[in-house]
Amino acid sequence: MTVKYIDFSDEKPLYAQVVEAIKQKISDNYWTLGMMISSENELAKEFDVSVGTIKKALSVLVQEGILYRRQGRGTFVASPDFSKSFSRFFRYGQFKGEASEVPGSQFLSAEVIPAPTEIAAALQLVAGDDILFMKRVRTLQEIPFCVEEIYLPYSRFKGLENLDLGKKLLYPIYNQNFSTPIFWAEEFLQPDTATGEVADLLNIPMNSPVMCVERIAYTYEDIPVEWRRSMGRGDSFRYHIVIR
Amino acid sequence: MTVKYIDFSDEKPLYAQVVEAIKQKISDNYWTLGMMISSENELAKEFDVSVGTIKKALSVLVQEGILYRRQGRGTFVASPDFSKSFSRFFRYGQFKGEASEVPGSQFLSAEVIPAPTEIAAALQLVAGDDILFMKRVRTLQEIPFCVEEIYLPYSRFKGLENLDLGKKLLYPIYNQNFSTPIFWAEEFLQPDTATGEVADLLNIPMNSPVMCVERIAYTYEDIPVEWRRSMGRGDSFRYHIVIR
Repeated sequence: MTVKYIDFSDEKPLYAQVVEAIKQKISDNYWTLGMMISSENELAKEFDVSVGTIKKALSVLVQEGILYRRQGRGTFVASPDFSKSFSRFFRYGQFKGEASEVPGSQFLSAEVIPAPTEIAAALQLVAGDDILFMKRVRTLQEIPFCVEEIYLPYSRFKGLENLDLGKKLLYPIYNQNFSTPIFWAEEFLQPDTATGEVADLLNIPMNSPVMCVERIAYTYEDIPVEWRRSMGRGDSFRYHIVIR
Repeated sequence: MTVKYIDFSDEKPLYAQVVEAIKQKISDNYWTLGMMISSENELAKEFDVSVGTIKKALSVLVQEGILYRRQGRGTFVASPDFSKSFSRFFRYGQFKGEASEVPGSQFLSAEVIPAPTEIAAALQLVAGDDILFMKRVRTLQEIPFCVEEIYLPYSRFKGLENLDLGKKLLYPIYNQNFSTPIFWAEEFLQPDTATGEVADLLNIPMNSPVMCVERIAYTYEDIPVEWRRSMGRGDSFRYHIVIR
């Protein structure tokens, strides 16, 4: 564990140093997503600063959405709400009523390749840098509903390809094994049609409608660390909004 | 103009009667979407009730999203925010940077037909009831980007087919000519592929990706009064969300 301590000779304000130190402790998994952090008094003691300085630092972190407060409970590390992800909406039609089930995964490949230009740009790498490329099929009740291509900067995720990923969610592994908690993400939705390979994997006719969700996932420091494209059966996708 | 007055012998609470009366005045276009309504004192005088009763009625209407308050300005009739509509996102690629332009419309047909079963159900009609069916192509910079099918209950919209609709938005016409302000809507998004007709109209190859947006639009009384399906070019659709 590397904990940054406060440097009283630094011209950076103390509260700003505490902000950085707390972010570091979260990155180091001292506090993990959803966990309650120490009390203001404990933090003041640990960093050797006033409770007022801690209060100011925590306000900044709450403002940034990194921490949140629960009245009468304490202060917690915020965790992104992936129930809002488009990929949760591939559950229409044949999967009705099963929205809470965690999908299964079949990995088709996991290999280190030179970063393609588009992916390198999105992940702030140089084209040709080592990228871990993984492809998997996601299933519900054993029925494939989505093909996923995942690109990760290999320098950060070295060795991930050797783990047994079959039944596990990836984000807890990024967090626990690679000190890379995913803090936020953006998604782009676009319709497409199934190529021969995607059609085979999804067991649908070639050129059938598919919904394509691209996601870029970021750390606390807003570093993009995962690019993924999910291609799902069009007839199992339905997304709803209310306009008021 | 039919204004419901307050019935003091009615066992319904006075504030609830005021709520109904204000809704009626909005339906009757006495106050239109976005307009400031009378002050609390004026309303109290008009309905012959206390300011306290008016305050309670306005609170309910604000709670329901029918009115909203602007500090120091007054109370306004809420107007649904169609900038959130999926149909605003058919502007990617060749239309970049033109998101604020109002699309043009070319009407292909407007005819009264017996309601198809699915549409009748969505509009709470009986299958076979008279429906006004309209088809149009929407354009940006003269380029077609979307084909739209619109179904309206004919009993409510009798004569709409004879109006010159070319350059006009439909919702202001529903409001002004048919006393039917659209108060909220729901949309469903699903990917599809272009049929021969849609491909011709959009000037894209048959079986190209299209994004399909279904919308049901409602009045203040939650009566569904319009069903529409917009089929847009897949390559001009891109929808973005942030997950935190």
